[in-house]
Amino acid sequence: MAEQKSIENVVFIGTKPVMNYVLAAITQFNAGAGVVTLKARGRAISRAVDVAEILRNRFLQNSTVDSIIIGTEQVQGESGTANVSTIEITIGKKK
Amino acid sequence: MAEQKSIENVVFIGTKPVMNYVLAAITQFNAGAGVVTLKARGRAISRAVDVAEILRNRFLQNSTVDSIIIGTEQVQGESGTANVSTIEITIGKKK
Repeated sequence: MAEQKSIENVVFIGTKPVMNYVLAAITQFNAGAGVVTLKARGRAISRAVDVAEILRNRFLQNSTVDSIIIGTEQVQGESGTANVSTIEITIGKKK
Repeated sequence: MAEQKSIENVVFIGTKPVMNYVLAAITQFNAGAGVVTLKARGRAISRAVDVAEILRNRFLQNSTVDSIIIGTEQVQGESGTANVSTIEITIGKKK
């Protein structure tokens, strides 16, 4: 595991309880990740913000929000193409 | 209305249809606002991202996301204090 520093890890936020994703992110930091990116789309976007805030305020108080990017993806639905919003929140460690 | 340039306007995102907030933001830009800030908390956060994306991709194609800030507010509930996540998305015009 010596070369695992600074690997960029991703946690995809879905419909599970918030704490599942908080734990997933903490696990990746403990495994040596320098930054962890939380990705979500649609209604899971609010949960991604919850995960970031809980990490930052409660479990990883030396962490910081490096960047927040929003975007749009096209998904195929039963009645053609629909647009869905996306968010990527990157959490790093304070220098 | 000559002095209304660069006033910072805020649209609070709640539970109404997304297009209501899109129209509110467009109205503020047309009234001379240099930037418009979308504020939301809790589950309305995903709707705020939708509003920003629709503005940027469909109605104000010369606009850009200036900043995205996330935070936590404490609200009084029936069983004590609860934390709720917040987002502030500032939309400006491309230079």
